[in-house]
Amino acid sequence: MKIAVLGTGIVGKTIAEKLNTLGHEVVIGTRDVEKTLANKSDEKSFAYWYESHKEIGLHTFKDAAAFAENVIFNCTSGMLSIKILQQAEAESLGNKIIIDVANPLDFSNGMPPTLNPGNSDSLAEQIQRTFPNLKVVKTLNTMSSFLMVKPSLVQGDHSIFVSGNDDAAKETVKELLNSFGWKKKNILDLGDISTARGAEMLLPIWMKLWNNLGTVEFNFHIQQNA
Amino acid sequence: MKIAVLGTGIVGKTIAEKLNTLGHEVVIGTRDVEKTLANKSDEKSFAYWYESHKEIGLHTFKDAAAFAENVIFNCTSGMLSIKILQQAEAESLGNKIIIDVANPLDFSNGMPPTLNPGNSDSLAEQIQRTFPNLKVVKTLNTMSSFLMVKPSLVQGDHSIFVSGNDDAAKETVKELLNSFGWKKKNILDLGDISTARGAEMLLPIWMKLWNNLGTVEFNFHIQQNA
Repeated sequence: MKIAVLGTGIVGKTIAEKLNTLGHEVVIGTRDVEKTLANKSDEKSFAYWYESHKEIGLHTFKDAAAFAENVIFNCTSGMLSIKILQQAEAESLGNKIIIDVANPLDFSNGMPPTLNPGNSDSLAEQIQRTFPNLKVVKTLNTMSSFLMVKPSLVQGDHSIFVSGNDDAAKETVKELLNSFGWKKKNILDLGDISTARGAEMLLPIWMKLWNNLGTVEFNFHIQQNA
Repeated sequence: MKIAVLGTGIVGKTIAEKLNTLGHEVVIGTRDVEKTLANKSDEKSFAYWYESHKEIGLHTFKDAAAFAENVIFNCTSGMLSIKILQQAEAESLGNKIIIDVANPLDFSNGMPPTLNPGNSDSLAEQIQRTFPNLKVVKTLNTMSSFLMVKPSLVQGDHSIFVSGNDDAAKETVKELLNSFGWKKKNILDLGDISTARGAEMLLPIWMKLWNNLGTVEFNFHIQQNA
């Protein structure tokens, strides 16, 4: 599949690399391609990573979204996602599936960040309202990027959540997740896009556990009786 | 121990009964004892349950709080908890440990309820600010009442979270949880009382899972590598 990944952070890089390994044609979207490639301000700069990943395209948000056949990953910073999707423009986004991996964490009042919106709304719903033709599917946002594409990093069974209004879109996403290594029994469909609130609200306890456990190698599991 | 349980709902009844079974002297607190005993409006009314649980005392919130030696359970409806604790009065509450089991779910705008406060505050912190001498410990709020006192209802390992500013108070609470059947390795101390935000924010996804799974016999587990 021709897939676009919006965002050049660790999440975007990790997902783009995995998709590439799986044989998809992948492009990454960024605000300004030249600036992104010129920025070598530290070792983690995208430009260094990109030197060994030239088989992955690098385009503007708009061109990347237009390249995507059917699936776009939103791996941008949650507080900027709506603005970035507006830069990608509605006609490039079309009625494609957007997999919303972002968390709307607001760091403007210091640590710990708050969720914005937090409670009676979610980023996923905001995206769906702003671009009604997009098929928004919220998933992957409740864990570290390493785990997203390699669930075996944490032993045993653990859960991944999926929210969205379009059942066919959710099926496509579940198959992609399955190709990432997620067992079908561990993919929990929460329901329509409003259920993304619950998934986004896992972030505050996730960040606290990250701090306390000293590792990102953990995940939520919904323990049930067999 | 002489323990007070504030609240006559299913959570209060379940915890009071368990504490009684464990040999503690237990009283339940309610707003108006006579009215509570006169209300037989439906089969689930407290008055019917109480007929077979007379060994448990029933007092006003204030008298119940005063009865407690060291530990008070807040099992009141979250949106009313502060008001009820004000009825219990600061001198009856003293500097005791209050185990805050309540969730501040606001049903005033219909279903699903929202959390109020949701994000940059929590009920547990509100209680701590309102009664600075109390030792507030948030726990037990992330599961069904049946599971609170019988973790084996869900097979295997699953997690319970503890938040609070006072380490000695948290130790007392962890021992109580252990006496309820919670294995020490599954009791996760999140940190100070502000971490109760993360625990309270688990409720929206919990309610959705309850709906989707068709049972309350599930729990969050933080899956880690051995």
